[in-house]
Amino acid sequence: MAEAYLQVIAHYFVKPGNGDAIVKPLTELAAATRAEPKNLYYELFRSPLDPDHFVILEQYSSADGLAEHRETEHFQHLGFGTIIPLLDRREVASHMFPGDAA
Amino acid sequence: MAEAYLQVIAHYFVKPGNGDAIVKPLTELAAATRAEPKNLYYELFRSPLDPDHFVILEQYSSADGLAEHRETEHFQHLGFGTIIPLLDRREVASHMFPGDAA
Repeated sequence: MAEAYLQVIAHYFVKPGNGDAIVKPLTELAAATRAEPKNLYYELFRSPLDPDHFVILEQYSSADGLAEHRETEHFQHLGFGTIIPLLDRREVASHMFPGDAA
Repeated sequence: MAEAYLQVIAHYFVKPGNGDAIVKPLTELAAATRAEPKNLYYELFRSPLDPDHFVILEQYSSADGLAEHRETEHFQHLGFGTIIPLLDRREVASHMFPGDAA
C-alpha cells in the first residue's frame, strides 16, 4: 500500500451463544462502513475454535477515520443499537501504519 | 500492553474448498507457536462470508520474532509442508506497535 493508513484490530467477544446472531448486523455494518469516504477496508472474521469471538479488521485513510466512523448514523444505529448490546466486551487497538511497510 | 511488540496480520487465502482442511493444521501450528519464547499471541480467524479466507493475528515481544518463528521446526514442517501448499496466496503485514498505544 502506497499511503500511510490507520489500522484497526477490534476483538468482539459476544455473549455466549450469540455468535450466529451477530453475523447479519455485522455484515450490514461492514457494507455501510465501506461506503465511508475514509474507509479503505472492513472485514469480519470469526474464531473457528470459539464461535463467540470475532475480529474486525479496518483500515482508514487518516488517523481520524475511526472516530468519524463511530459518529456515523450506521454505527450509532447498528453498532450501539444492535451489535454492542450482544457483546460481553470489546478490545479495539488502532495504529497508524507507514505506507511503505510490507 | 506495557511493552512494545511486533503485530502481525496474516491473510491466508485457501485454494477453493480447502477451508475446512486447513483448520486442524493451523490449530496445531497455533499451539506450537504459542510455546515460542518470543510469542505473545497467536489466534486464527475465518471469514463467515468466505470460508476460504483466514486471518491469523500474531504478536511477538521483539521485531525478530516473526523471522525466528518461520525458522522453527513446526513452521517448517506444518507451515511449509502442510498449510502453505493448501493456499492460493498469503499476505502478511508486520509492524512494531508502541507499548503505550490503545
